[in-house]
Amino acid sequence: MSVEYNEIEETMSVDDPSEITETVAVPRQGWGVLHLFAKAPRSGADKEGTIALCKRLESSGYQVITFAVLGHKADIGFMVIGPDLWKLREFQGELSSLGYDFSYSYFSITEVSEYASSLSEARKKPRLYPKLPPEGKMAICFYPMSKARGERNNWYALSYDERERLMFEHGTSGRKFSERVTQLVTGSTGLDDYEWGVTLFAERPDDLKEVVYTMRYDEASTLYGIFGPFYTGLIAPPAEVLDLI
Amino acid sequence: MSVEYNEIEETMSVDDPSEITETVAVPRQGWGVLHLFAKAPRSGADKEGTIALCKRLESSGYQVITFAVLGHKADIGFMVIGPDLWKLREFQGELSSLGYDFSYSYFSITEVSEYASSLSEARKKPRLYPKLPPEGKMAICFYPMSKARGERNNWYALSYDERERLMFEHGTSGRKFSERVTQLVTGSTGLDDYEWGVTLFAERPDDLKEVVYTMRYDEASTLYGIFGPFYTGLIAPPAEVLDLI
Amino acid sequence: MSVEYNEIEETMSVDDPSEITETVAVPRQGWGVLHLFAKAPRSGADKEGTIALCKRLESSGYQVITFAVLGHKADIGFMVIGPDLWKLREFQGELSSLGYDFSYSYFSITEVSEYASSLSEARKKPRLYPKLPPEGKMAICFYPMSKARGERNNWYALSYDERERLMFEHGTSGRKFSERVTQLVTGSTGLDDYEWGVTLFAERPDDLKEVVYTMRYDEASTLYGIFGPFYTGLIAPPAEVLDLI
Amino acid sequence: MSVEYNEIEETMSVDDPSEITETVAVPRQGWGVLHLFAKAPRSGADKEGTIALCKRLESSGYQVITFAVLGHKADIGFMVIGPDLWKLREFQGELSSLGYDFSYSYFSITEVSEYASSLSEARKKPRLYPKLPPEGKMAICFYPMSKARGERNNWYALSYDERERLMFEHGTSGRKFSERVTQLVTGSTGLDDYEWGVTLFAERPDDLKEVVYTMRYDEASTLYGIFGPFYTGLIAPPAEVLDLI
Amino acid sequence: MSVEYNEIEETMSVDDPSEITETVAVPRQGWGVLHLFAKAPRSGADKEGTIALCKRLESSGYQVITFAVLGHKADIGFMVIGPDLWKLREFQGELSSLGYDFSYSYFSITEVSEYASSLSEARKKPRLYPKLPPEGKMAICFYPMSKARGERNNWYALSYDERERLMFEHGTSGRKFSERVTQLVTGSTGLDDYEWGVTLFAERPDDLKEVVYTMRYDEASTLYGIFGPFYTGLIAPPAEVLDLI
Repeated sequence: MSVEYNEIEETMSVDDPSEITETVAVPRQGWGVLHLFAKAPRSGADKEGTIALCKRLESSGYQVITFAVLGHKADIGFMVIGPDLWKLREFQGELSSLGYDFSYSYFSITEVSEYASSLSEARKKPRLYPKLPPEGKMAICFYPMSKARGERNNWYALSYDERERLMFEHGTSGRKFSERVTQLVTGSTGLDDYEWGVTLFAERPDDLKEVVYTMRYDEASTLYGIFGPFYTGLIAPPAEVLDLI
Repeated sequence: MSVEYNEIEETMSVDDPSEITETVAVPRQGWGVLHLFAKAPRSGADKEGTIALCKRLESSGYQVITFAVLGHKADIGFMVIGPDLWKLREFQGELSSLGYDFSYSYFSITEVSEYASSLSEARKKPRLYPKLPPEGKMAICFYPMSKARGERNNWYALSYDERERLMFEHGTSGRKFSERVTQLVTGSTGLDDYEWGVTLFAERPDDLKEVVYTMRYDEASTLYGIFGPFYTGLIAPPAEVLDLI
Repeated sequence: MSVEYNEIEETMSVDDPSEITETVAVPRQGWGVLHLFAKAPRSGADKEGTIALCKRLESSGYQVITFAVLGHKADIGFMVIGPDLWKLREFQGELSSLGYDFSYSYFSITEVSEYASSLSEARKKPRLYPKLPPEGKMAICFYPMSKARGERNNWYALSYDERERLMFEHGTSGRKFSERVTQLVTGSTGLDDYEWGVTLFAERPDDLKEVVYTMRYDEASTLYGIFGPFYTGLIAPPAEVLDLI
Repeated sequence: MSVEYNEIEETMSVDDPSEITETVAVPRQGWGVLHLFAKAPRSGADKEGTIALCKRLESSGYQVITFAVLGHKADIGFMVIGPDLWKLREFQGELSSLGYDFSYSYFSITEVSEYASSLSEARKKPRLYPKLPPEGKMAICFYPMSKARGERNNWYALSYDERERLMFEHGTSGRKFSERVTQLVTGSTGLDDYEWGVTLFAERPDDLKEVVYTMRYDEASTLYGIFGPFYTGLIAPPAEVLDLI
Repeated sequence: MSVEYNEIEETMSVDDPSEITETVAVPRQGWGVLHLFAKAPRSGADKEGTIALCKRLESSGYQVITFAVLGHKADIGFMVIGPDLWKLREFQGELSSLGYDFSYSYFSITEVSEYASSLSEARKKPRLYPKLPPEGKMAICFYPMSKARGERNNWYALSYDERERLMFEHGTSGRKFSERVTQLVTGSTGLDDYEWGVTLFAERPDDLKEVVYTMRYDEASTLYGIFGPFYTGLIAPPAEVLDLI
């Protein structure tokens, strides 16, 4: 379940502290990721305005993925990714101005998990600077998750070695789906209500079901996975999404 | 509690990947199932528009079941079933355009559970391509459910054999109601907030109560069943539902 | 805590299946019970319309109890009882048309619990076909409840004999209040979010408090009772309720 | 943490059943207590109307305490106390008519707890017929609470003696704050979602924090206390509250 | 993770009881802290009015921190700090008048924790009278928290020595981030729904993630931390925040 590396985009990361000004908020490492789920205005969405807004952010090198959401939780989802959080926040504000009413959102930052710290730079980069959406994977699912701190099953009370072993098992289980499903796990401890955001991209809608169901039997999920709400949708360019919702 | 097989409809399933285009989102196996629960617009529902919309989707070979919902959770429920999720999403969007305000929804995909994988094709097909609603069963109830991952009672930590034994017992218990109640269990792990959606169709309203109450004593439910909200209603053609709500 | 038997009304129960048509939804045994909690329209409730609506349903032999609700949860409560769920649903729809906005509701069906199956018909009938409200008991309280399926305390894992013993103890404890409080327990497993609905009618408001507080020490409640929200109100004819809210 | 006794008011209690009519709902013992938390209308609160309404109820011998609420939960709180629940309900309805929108409420009845049943009448009366607010204590906090019925720590499974011991310890701990904080505990089992309502009146706002924090180490709270939402505010006459919110 | 001491402001604390009047509500020790999270009015925020309001409160010696919130939970956050709660409440009311709609809030009071009672006055003062925001730390995160009272892991059942040891370990872990992150912990037991409010100020947004993630492995958090919702934002003067949201 690997994500492609976005070579051009990476150069956008601001690693030189001198570049930080009052209105630039850039992570030391990785990019900000803002998932925004919205109801379109009753009077109908401003199609031209929405397309122009997405284009404008993309022209600054940011990535914007739009998708139609299935069910009552939202009409449309926007996943926006890039270095400066002020830019992401500005995008959010402009969607509000266009009349979108947010029903849910999630804020996280791309990261290389501690268990992957020994990976080569080549394998780390797609996690920090992903190129999305992966080709041909138009079914999308987002959900936030945490690790249990229960009275008996407490992830944070395990040794590092035990956690690494469980994550390795979990990764092996997931890799069997790598052809059909691409996964991006981004960190949100201290940023939003769960500890990670998971975005899955699949070729076919039931691939999402199969991968999550299968992995629920991994010890890391069986004993320690706490899952938030699931938002499932279909990716398409904004014009098509807005035509169909 | 068996569902009839919809022979004509099955041919709609897209199993040839070459048929998949950017705006077609079809499961590898089975059909998408979208339960939509809505409040009618204060100014009154557009009866003609709603009937026409349902007809249009049905004429493409999809199934649309409409029912009046009892209580404050919704005025009307729509259960739509068919191969292409974009079609289901389009239906949702058109209901919005007609002024319906969704209060709840559930998205799942028909499936043959792993414990039923050895069944004959003839017994699998009605689960993947059901013909609904079953004749003469006008009382409907929908609820989502998950299996517990508690600190002591953890379904996912059981062996396959143990789970199969419990599901077999559960099935036997349910089959005693097969005359009166038809059950459709659809999968939603990775798609919506619970792991399965359960739709029950019964001859009489208290059949719903009796079957669920009785099965709550099955070990699979007693120890491992986690139940979401229950939506109970009465099935009728859209015209009649809209007259009565 | 007994309820009177409604002799006339019972004849309304449809036990002959030939009487069931597509637009009649009647339990095999007992009556449907719909509790509706509503906010009156900001512009003021339509008093005449509400009174006429209640009268109309009552003239078909159904029972309608109206009460003013204390606190923010609702302005007014309607408890409607009778054989055909379509009639109850129609009543709900007409309240909507009158501008009432439902904040909560509960749908259940009258029943004779399995522990009372050996009672005489004379004692069963008031549970299936109650005559409400009991004379002189104008304080009302409704709450839904379930039995625990906890990891240690699991009602459904107890033997029938043990459950019967606990229910007998619980009943004995309740009967001490029979002069002051009348209780109606209706079943909702598979119909609404809890397993039972409890409606209490009391002479004085603190009788409600005393009976529920006292019974909380019964083992059936102490170890196994799961209680939903409590709706407390004062019964009066619709005209008086609407004058006062 | 004692409350003063309201001698005049007590005479309002209706202990003679002959006085009870259909539209009078009076506890056998004690007074009704209705906490109402409201958002003022966007167009501004009707100051004159609100003041007149409070005066009117007070002139019937009821007590009305108004306070500005800190934070988003409400703009203004009303705590109304007196014998007839219909009067309290009427007050609620008139606030609605004035455009107030209730965001929360709590209904309870004053009581002498079973552990205090051996107290002298003089010490019981202020609990049943309190005179509020206590002089010079303008910081107010309301929260509902229940006693745990957990799988290990279950208050209702303790012996009476053990509960009495814990309540005595709890009371001793609280009395250390009696100069600075006055507490009124009212009963709501069977009436509202928790089992008791707690209203604290303090000289200074951090007295509220100190007393509740300190008492959380009492075994009765540590092991058995379940706390609902906390509403904190500043008491002032309605005119001043409405000027400031 | 230390906060600077605000020398001028401290003089505002009212320690002389004679200064307390009916419309002044000042803690005995420390300042009131009100976090207000709001949606701007659909018609656009009144920029001039908001700036003037903030200035007015600041000119009385109070501190007002404004920040753009990431995601759907709010558009803008206001953190206001100072001695008199009436002033804070007045600020809240004026934001309402400007059309802001509060989606969340938190009320707490600055404090020196019992484990820090032996600190020098110089180290205590910045906790009671902080000068905010710390220079160059423009990423902000607020979340409320409590200590667990679980059936096995119960913070309040630990000895003082054990709690002190855990808090010391926790503090040591946090101090490793003192360059990059400033933390202010304020008390809210008895005032709001959790026991403490935590406000973090960081140089870079992923510092927030790193510090909270790292500290989750401290025994005090692993076994006893209960975390509420997280609100993450970017600090800027009101004019800039209002331009960007």
